[in-house]
Amino acid sequence: MKSTQILFTDVNSQTWVEEILLNAESHPEFSENPSWSIRKTQLHGGLSEGVDLIEVNNGALQLSILPTRGMGVWKGNCQGIPLEWQSPVKSPVNPAFVTLSERGGLGWLSGFNELICRCGLISNGPPGADSAGNPLESELTLHGRIANTPAHYVSVELDPADGGWLKISGKMEEGMLFGSHFLLESTLETRLGSAEFRIRDRVTNLGPEPTESELLYHINVGAPFLGEGSRFAMPFKEMAPRDPRAAEGVNEFETYLGPTPGYAEQAYYFLPVCDENGDSPALLTGKKGALGFLVNFKKASLPYFTLWKNTQSESGGYVTGLEPAISFPNFRGVEREQGRLKRVEPGGSYETEFQVSILNNSDSVDEVRQKITKLSEQGPSVVHETPHPRFS
Amino acid sequence: MKSTQILFTDVNSQTWVEEILLNAESHPEFSENPSWSIRKTQLHGGLSEGVDLIEVNNGALQLSILPTRGMGVWKGNCQGIPLEWQSPVKSPVNPAFVTLSERGGLGWLSGFNELICRCGLISNGPPGADSAGNPLESELTLHGRIANTPAHYVSVELDPADGGWLKISGKMEEGMLFGSHFLLESTLETRLGSAEFRIRDRVTNLGPEPTESELLYHINVGAPFLGEGSRFAMPFKEMAPRDPRAAEGVNEFETYLGPTPGYAEQAYYFLPVCDENGDSPALLTGKKGALGFLVNFKKASLPYFTLWKNTQSESGGYVTGLEPAISFPNFRGVEREQGRLKRVEPGGSYETEFQVSILNNSDSVDEVRQKITKLSEQGPSVVHETPHPRFS
Amino acid sequence: MKSTQILFTDVNSQTWVEEILLNAESHPEFSENPSWSIRKTQLHGGLSEGVDLIEVNNGALQLSILPTRGMGVWKGNCQGIPLEWQSPVKSPVNPAFVTLSERGGLGWLSGFNELICRCGLISNGPPGADSAGNPLESELTLHGRIANTPAHYVSVELDPADGGWLKISGKMEEGMLFGSHFLLESTLETRLGSAEFRIRDRVTNLGPEPTESELLYHINVGAPFLGEGSRFAMPFKEMAPRDPRAAEGVNEFETYLGPTPGYAEQAYYFLPVCDENGDSPALLTGKKGALGFLVNFKKASLPYFTLWKNTQSESGGYVTGLEPAISFPNFRGVEREQGRLKRVEPGGSYETEFQVSILNNSDSVDEVRQKITKLSEQGPSVVHETPHPRFS
Repeated sequence: MKSTQILFTDVNSQTWVEEILLNAESHPEFSENPSWSIRKTQLHGGLSEGVDLIEVNNGALQLSILPTRGMGVWKGNCQGIPLEWQSPVKSPVNPAFVTLSERGGLGWLSGFNELICRCGLISNGPPGADSAGNPLESELTLHGRIANTPAHYVSVELDPADGGWLKISGKMEEGMLFGSHFLLESTLETRLGSAEFRIRDRVTNLGPEPTESELLYHINVGAPFLGEGSRFAMPFKEMAPRDPRAAEGVNEFETYLGPTPGYAEQAYYFLPVCDENGDSPALLTGKKGALGFLVNFKKASLPYFTLWKNTQSESGGYVTGLEPAISFPNFRGVEREQGRLKRVEPGGSYETEFQVSILNNSDSVDEVRQKITKLSEQGPSVVHETPHPRFS
Repeated sequence: MKSTQILFTDVNSQTWVEEILLNAESHPEFSENPSWSIRKTQLHGGLSEGVDLIEVNNGALQLSILPTRGMGVWKGNCQGIPLEWQSPVKSPVNPAFVTLSERGGLGWLSGFNELICRCGLISNGPPGADSAGNPLESELTLHGRIANTPAHYVSVELDPADGGWLKISGKMEEGMLFGSHFLLESTLETRLGSAEFRIRDRVTNLGPEPTESELLYHINVGAPFLGEGSRFAMPFKEMAPRDPRAAEGVNEFETYLGPTPGYAEQAYYFLPVCDENGDSPALLTGKKGALGFLVNFKKASLPYFTLWKNTQSESGGYVTGLEPAISFPNFRGVEREQGRLKRVEPGGSYETEFQVSILNNSDSVDEVRQKITKLSEQGPSVVHETPHPRFS
Repeated sequence: MKSTQILFTDVNSQTWVEEILLNAESHPEFSENPSWSIRKTQLHGGLSEGVDLIEVNNGALQLSILPTRGMGVWKGNCQGIPLEWQSPVKSPVNPAFVTLSERGGLGWLSGFNELICRCGLISNGPPGADSAGNPLESELTLHGRIANTPAHYVSVELDPADGGWLKISGKMEEGMLFGSHFLLESTLETRLGSAEFRIRDRVTNLGPEPTESELLYHINVGAPFLGEGSRFAMPFKEMAPRDPRAAEGVNEFETYLGPTPGYAEQAYYFLPVCDENGDSPALLTGKKGALGFLVNFKKASLPYFTLWKNTQSESGGYVTGLEPAISFPNFRGVEREQGRLKRVEPGGSYETEFQVSILNNSDSVDEVRQKITKLSEQGPSVVHETPHPRFS
């Protein structure tokens, strides 16, 4: 049996579907499992005016994908367990309302509320003036433009292989005359009935010059995975706190506080270790250990990992970030010095891949924990007590 | 009989009504008065593309409310008398086209044409860098963000009490991770057949920290209320010109010039006096005294008042502003020093209220004038001839 | 027989047509020629979300007009010959996504991909701080705002005169309180079956003060007109390279390189010569001389001309610009000093006019070449080898 392709958006061919519902009724041939659906709508009102929304339901897992916000994943739900955090920004923000250069280059935060959003493509990290690279792009703003770049192409594939896969693809371009020019092709895939989904991205340099790129996945998790006593675990070779503030908590990096008024964010930078398949597991577990949010990322494609702890008050945005990336979220100049920027040749590209799994019982959590322990024991896990010049 | 609630917009529940007409035909039970209507549409074309518009008609008074522009009141009409001014900006501007930080922080002006628009919520007044407060919010832009914040929730209530009231409510939020977080709940109410409407607002701090707030009502009136020989009257305890330019005209603050090429704006700051109900009346009357635009504001909620005189050429935007507020429209740092900023605790809120009445005959105008005179005679009305350090 | 007027957009009267097709079927009375059409749609997806598009087909020539982008001409096609260039920006960009002040004031480039776009109305040329003029408008951004100003009024006229003319008109305003206030009324006209179209614009100062204006037509052409060995020709009195980079190629200004990696743009400034009708012909021809892109501009209305050579790699945006204007695209301060700014009195206006003709055979190309040669021989054509202070 062959895959079915449904085109939602293609600016070139003037294709755009305002509303559509795909399910077992519209596509009975796709799968024997009748409980899946893909619903495409458009949001209206407030700062969400005009935001395209794709709600994917594989029967066990629901995910809300935002073509208008660079194919970010707004939030999800896995068999009743919310996959989200409570940002002060309540609903998806149309990039038309976001001015990245405002607020000292931190305007990006005014649209930030996703479970998964990408940071890149020309830069990631704090704002500032980077005199190297293209002068048109020297005024860097927080975390780059890609999360605020609407997809010009969106399609869905119903792939009957292996019980049935839902695959949602989008394409975004960052480019302009005299500037750099990147294409991001993104696919989110999930199997019917599964508590997992996978994201595979390819970034291609469409411009005429070799160009530096950065890309980080800001995977942001709140309750019920995050709470007082929650734990983080990942096998790693080396870790360093980003700054003195993070150094204060370096010995407790694996554990979380509850919502803490006045808490200032802490970030830890890791060199991960992977298993024999090349996967690095990063695991956030609730206090009781019966619930886990697992990010398995292909280390070859995402060699660096940042743990962002932001356990401030709930009303301020209680959240932690599990952030695999092709570099650390330092200022681009720092990453250039450290040789961590991706240099993409004209016509060249790079790919990334990771998978998110929701673990909803002690057995599955324990299994991953044991795997992480085992991987950790293969070599030393160096923890720098203070910021290290190779890291930040 | 019970009120009828009609929801126009709610991003959370994915509710949005593109077009609707409510009137005696759709809601015959509401009132015996058949001449009311509420019409919701969306504007298209130019800088108005995508602007939601609610046209309220109580049978005597029409008001055009702009959910997309923070529930501002674009313009009105009272039994044939236009309530408006002629801004160079001809139609409502979608905030997506406004960049507040442009033009030296004066980008707000590129969308300014309302009869009533709010200035706030974190600041009001001129742009500049305010190093106190949240660093994310230190690059203040003219008059803040609220007039360019679309409502994420809009509802209408048909309340049969007392002959029938039309009540239009909207909610806007200003907030982001690491930033302040305010909710503005706004209601505009008007009774069927009345030449009056009332605005009641509540501002709530949804964030985790005590936060400074400012809020000013920029109520802007042109012809036929404003013209050569028009007069302003308000009972006050103390008044000071904002700056040397205003001081030039301090002795003529109560009277208006006709359209005057090259006229530079003048602003006067007042400490109002209120009546036994707590209302302070601010009155603009035409030369003949048969027409009045009256703003009655609750002094306890809006303790400061600014008179803005901008009687430049008609093509430049001949207008005056009657501006009750919780502070003066000085730079935020000045207001902080003077202790006029509202400090709102987490979960705390403050409310404001004022009423606009259109007076269309000499008797009603005289009555208000006499009331103002009487209130003025209760104590001295100090006029500072020059700018005073307590005021600006 | 009378003209037929069809209104597409008028914000004032709340008129807007989302989709419409005008053709011989809908308007059989208009012309015996059945092969024309005018189709109005709205683009969706990516940065094109919400962009209005008018596709005009006169039977021989197709043009895509963008009301949302100041009535620019995105691209065209003449009997199979594409009229376009390959910008890194692939589809029309909604100005809601453009922040002109970003990227050091070069944000304009993030929406630049048109065959014809206007630069103006208060300024044209590079960004910078111009302390003269209105302080609200001293932070000049590249090429001004008009290409990113949506039309608030769009209408089509079917004029049966002379075999039938299609006329598409749009109005844009740039204005705000305390700022300058210009109205641009634009008309594009093409006769059925013709390989030509004409643009006629009028700029009116609606504000109360005399105001400086600039206006340049950025007419951008790629393959098949542009290629290695393509030639430019225009009769002129005087020419100077803009800068040392342009001076490097001043002796080869008439010829083009093929796509050249690393090529930096070159610009040449001309004082044109016109024929007895006041037309100045600027001609780009392919290597074989059988294809020509001819711009005939009314020299009295557009006294200056810039040739922009940007023959970089195809993926970077291989293109040349034929740019008639009311001034040179220097920084506004330079143009002021040279007395080239248009000063428009309140209520005053100026008009511009040019025509584009596609030549598709050697005879028609030769004819124009001979005309240019003849006009050139009427007097000296001074070429300054280096930048000249009167020019740049």
